[in-house]
Amino acid sequence: MKYKTQMEAAKKGFLTDQMKIVAKKENISEDILMQRLAIGSIVIPSNINHKSLSPVGLGDGLRTKVNVSLGISGDCDNYEKEHEKVQMALDFNVDSICDLSNYGKTFGFREQLIKCSTAMVGTVPVYDAVGYFEKDLASLTVENFLEILEVHANQGVDFVTIHAGMNRSAISKFREDGRLTNIVSRGGSLLFAWMELTGNENPFFEYFDEVLDILNKYDVTMSLGDAMRPGCLADGTDCGQIAELIEQSLLTKRAWKRNVQVIVEGPGHIAINEVETNVRLQKRLCHNAPFYVLGPLVTDIAPGYDHITSAIGGALAAASGADFLCYVTPAEHLRLPDLQDVKDGIIAVKIAAHVADIAKGIPNVREIDDKMADARKKVDWDGMFHCAIDPVKAREYHESVAIKTEGTCSMCGKMCAMRTTANILEGKDIGF
Amino acid sequence: MKYKTQMEAAKKGFLTDQMKIVAKKENISEDILMQRLAIGSIVIPSNINHKSLSPVGLGDGLRTKVNVSLGISGDCDNYEKEHEKVQMALDFNVDSICDLSNYGKTFGFREQLIKCSTAMVGTVPVYDAVGYFEKDLASLTVENFLEILEVHANQGVDFVTIHAGMNRSAISKFREDGRLTNIVSRGGSLLFAWMELTGNENPFFEYFDEVLDILNKYDVTMSLGDAMRPGCLADGTDCGQIAELIEQSLLTKRAWKRNVQVIVEGPGHIAINEVETNVRLQKRLCHNAPFYVLGPLVTDIAPGYDHITSAIGGALAAASGADFLCYVTPAEHLRLPDLQDVKDGIIAVKIAAHVADIAKGIPNVREIDDKMADARKKVDWDGMFHCAIDPVKAREYHESVAIKTEGTCSMCGKMCAMRTTANILEGKDIGF
Repeated sequence: MKYKTQMEAAKKGFLTDQMKIVAKKENISEDILMQRLAIGSIVIPSNINHKSLSPVGLGDGLRTKVNVSLGISGDCDNYEKEHEKVQMALDFNVDSICDLSNYGKTFGFREQLIKCSTAMVGTVPVYDAVGYFEKDLASLTVENFLEILEVHANQGVDFVTIHAGMNRSAISKFREDGRLTNIVSRGGSLLFAWMELTGNENPFFEYFDEVLDILNKYDVTMSLGDAMRPGCLADGTDCGQIAELIEQSLLTKRAWKRNVQVIVEGPGHIAINEVETNVRLQKRLCHNAPFYVLGPLVTDIAPGYDHITSAIGGALAAASGADFLCYVTPAEHLRLPDLQDVKDGIIAVKIAAHVADIAKGIPNVREIDDKMADARKKVDWDGMFHCAIDPVKAREYHESVAIKTEGTCSMCGKMCAMRTTANILEGKDIGF
Repeated sequence: MKYKTQMEAAKKGFLTDQMKIVAKKENISEDILMQRLAIGSIVIPSNINHKSLSPVGLGDGLRTKVNVSLGISGDCDNYEKEHEKVQMALDFNVDSICDLSNYGKTFGFREQLIKCSTAMVGTVPVYDAVGYFEKDLASLTVENFLEILEVHANQGVDFVTIHAGMNRSAISKFREDGRLTNIVSRGGSLLFAWMELTGNENPFFEYFDEVLDILNKYDVTMSLGDAMRPGCLADGTDCGQIAELIEQSLLTKRAWKRNVQVIVEGPGHIAINEVETNVRLQKRLCHNAPFYVLGPLVTDIAPGYDHITSAIGGALAAASGADFLCYVTPAEHLRLPDLQDVKDGIIAVKIAAHVADIAKGIPNVREIDDKMADARKKVDWDGMFHCAIDPVKAREYHESVAIKTEGTCSMCGKMCAMRTTANILEGKDIGF
């Protein structure tokens, strides 16, 4: 083999099968794609052991991608329910599925997911460590952390969240500055607890080269986690967050030197007027590495509706240049999402990504909006349902109320503006 | 009486009861409020005959306001259902209710609404004309249009949508430029049809002074409608839309000369990257008159989810300076909304307004977010529900899944980041 990772191949000028597929999917030239892979502004997360993957690219000039998170936990260990979510995510053509399982038969769940998923698969190995080794958190060793990472990599995970940026230096900034909600990242809190309980440095930071060895071997993309992402507006864009971003920047360069592909993770909860700043700052500091945001949630007061708060933040973030959006469901902050929550989360994040891709000027992405508009002008209901992001709901809604004037809906009835205007322009009778 | 309208009072230096109430509600000085009322950058829509009104201000430096639209129609003439929506809107403390009734016993419906509504009441008199006079549209006379306007004004409507900007000049621009969805405003389509069928100029434009006479008499605020608002992204910010905005600008000045308060209505469907431009353009052209946007909807492909597409657009529009957001429900483009749709629409628009008010720097508006964050840090569920925009849904969600670790939720269970971090910082055992 002449290369180990897509980045190495790109640097050496080898056109891989994955590149060919992504170039075709995105309608971008293979040359440009390869150049961007070589400098890290595009990644193609594709573990050599993920055989069912349909490769996806993320980054500069490509469509905004969306992720669905799911997984079994101590409170919800119903495999079948979680696999129904997987199937729904695949049916909705999401780009990525993060398995955040942290308890129970996680190995088998992950195996089955990787086997069936044409979408990228991501994990956060540190979630899995306590359960996998059946040890207390404080008893876990550096070797354990590296081992669980290799277990995931070997199984075929395409990208892993590694919270290497939250080192002692970054933590000192967070401690000095103070915070309202401290550390809200699950993985971040586990590492913070481990560091405090053992007195050690962040193992993923201290043994970053060993981490890179593993990722390089399987071409796992590093998703540099933001352990100190703000958990509320008050902590948005604060010293702790930006101190970690600086570490993420430095680690990105170290990873690239070893040809490991990098995604950088970002907030979190931030006010709407800080969204664009956060994207620009990440892009500059991290040398245009693809940016993966969780939300951002632009207010803290809407539990039950955080698919909406994050659709607002996500649309604006992606329109400002973010490349990858993690869905947030209405269940966020309240419970593990059920199937309907997952659906609502998927639709909301797909809306946000699409809205942003129009702003990004991704070629042909607005065609579907124009088709919808044309169907609306013609009051062609089947045409409208065909263009709808959720044809089933659209049709159900429309057909739920009997209408009196053919071709209209119960909102305006015979006073339908589309109908009136069309009749006038075509010289027909308006009928009232 | 020394003045007829709030604007006249402000120009003459009279501090009205309405001003006092609004200044107190908004925590703004009475002087500044009066100055801004005098120059038109703030309005207090308060018809002299709307006795139950709790006055609300809109504009420069004030909280973003939200409107709920409802009303009876040919397809849905169930009074009680519509009044349930009114009650829900009032329960959610919306700032304004637009009665868009266009068929049936509209007079009585409106009367009852005005009697019970502490929120502002708006209408679009032209909707009501065909039914009120029991005539075909083309047979309506200028006198009819003015009469129906006076009927509404006399009943106590606080603001009326008047599509005076779509005159023959503006229409010629729309016709020359061409459009995908032509005219999608219901009132606009009626006036366009009337103009085409009769060969006359827009009656509200031609007889604008007579319109102002009526509005001045009852202190009805003019909401200058955007009859040619884009109905799809393809038509966003096009010649027709901006030609009408220029007319709205000129009419705004004419209204102000007669001390009639003015709100300017705006889009509609526009791409996310055109939202801020639209707000800045309106503010400049219309001399900082308050801007009222319907949505904007930032994609056309999400019928069934247009409360989300418009929350995205509305949050960004208001953060950019828009003052007044019209809610959009999931039923938009599909059917008349039911009660659940109305609720979903209200929550979404309230989120958008709140998110924007944080960006606008409205004093104290973020306190509730900080309170929520504090409750989250303490894993204080009752505290969280108390701060939630919809406490009922939040509690229902949380309590729907049994939890195994006290104080957590089924999302992370014992691996709750808030819990872990708090335990570590307080030197307590994390329990795993």
